[in-house]
Amino acid sequence: MTKLKVASFGISLDGFGAGPSQSLENPLGVGFPEVMNWFFPTREFRKMQRLEGGETGVDNEMAEKGMSGMGAWILGRNMFSHSRGPWPDDNWKGWWGDEPPYHVKTFVLTHYAHDPIMMKGGTEFIFVTDGIESALEQARAAANGKDIRVGGGVATVRDYLSAGLIDEMHLAVRPVLLGKGEHLFNGLDMRALGYEVAESIAGERTTHVIIRKK
Amino acid sequence: MTKLKVASFGISLDGFGAGPSQSLENPLGVGFPEVMNWFFPTREFRKMQRLEGGETGVDNEMAEKGMSGMGAWILGRNMFSHSRGPWPDDNWKGWWGDEPPYHVKTFVLTHYAHDPIMMKGGTEFIFVTDGIESALEQARAAANGKDIRVGGGVATVRDYLSAGLIDEMHLAVRPVLLGKGEHLFNGLDMRALGYEVAESIAGERTTHVIIRKK
Repeated sequence: MTKLKVASFGISLDGFGAGPSQSLENPLGVGFPEVMNWFFPTREFRKMQRLEGGETGVDNEMAEKGMSGMGAWILGRNMFSHSRGPWPDDNWKGWWGDEPPYHVKTFVLTHYAHDPIMMKGGTEFIFVTDGIESALEQARAAANGKDIRVGGGVATVRDYLSAGLIDEMHLAVRPVLLGKGEHLFNGLDMRALGYEVAESIAGERTTHVIIRKK
Repeated sequence: MTKLKVASFGISLDGFGAGPSQSLENPLGVGFPEVMNWFFPTREFRKMQRLEGGETGVDNEMAEKGMSGMGAWILGRNMFSHSRGPWPDDNWKGWWGDEPPYHVKTFVLTHYAHDPIMMKGGTEFIFVTDGIESALEQARAAANGKDIRVGGGVATVRDYLSAGLIDEMHLAVRPVLLGKGEHLFNGLDMRALGYEVAESIAGERTTHVIIRKK
């Protein structure tokens, strides 16, 4: 049965899932690359960039798990683009170059209609303007029994958590203080929403925590 | 040189340093014992209760470090007592029985004057009504070159962090979702306050993180 998953989602020790002031120069927000610096050294991340090498070990295994077996992805607008509001005429096709690492239908949540974009390697960006449940429904049809991954960012993950729609979430808690940014859990009563920690695994550079819906 | 330390301070994955609704029945707030359930099984905790046995290992070592070498302690009123406001006439002497685990002068922050209380084993509770800096000054004089530990609770630790007065903080991050309670870092920009993570150590039941002032 299709599960809706979050994976390899980095948070700082003080709870931030993205840095402040996202921009073309700072796709993850200021300071956030430090929080993701367990993912960048892995073989899996280098493979996504079609590069050789990279580290193996627990962090790499967790990174691999998060990328494999997905039948569809869901992304928030701000994870797809640095622009805000009505789409500018800039021919933007995401942060990931000609061949994004998704290789399946990838639904982008937005308030502004946009034609689908077919990319190399099977990734098709499809823009959904009628909300998270509609995106999930379309992703479920596309996934054909495989799992669906909510890629992010923070606001999108929070929306799906608040609606109780995430089945499993793999967080990577990095021992780094970010100070400001977008907080993942603030104001969300995760216990009341039915979530509990199933597992905690020490990696080389981060602690991996698996959260499941009861 | 005397350092002001926080040690063995448990937080949940979602960032809470105490549960909601502290009371005589729930000294740590509802649900919080689960967050401290790395400390309770240790030999150090059992020793504090004058009990035999208990587990050894990383968690126990960290627990031991936090209790040793302290020349004075500072506690918030709510860590000393379940009562609020003017002191009731209940002969309350803290949660810890006749012989508390401090064995040194222990300064209790309160808005209401209270006579000192001498306990067995060298703990003396001294009540400070003129603020955190005064308490620190008095603790420094009492500590005679040894370190001072801020025991808690959350509000007291936050007050000392906000003032930039904590030199070192050992957090124990438990993979548990609490949902609600007192958040340790909310609204505190730890990076701007000059703090950084110095070390992260995987324990048996929790991840130990050492934070230091730059």
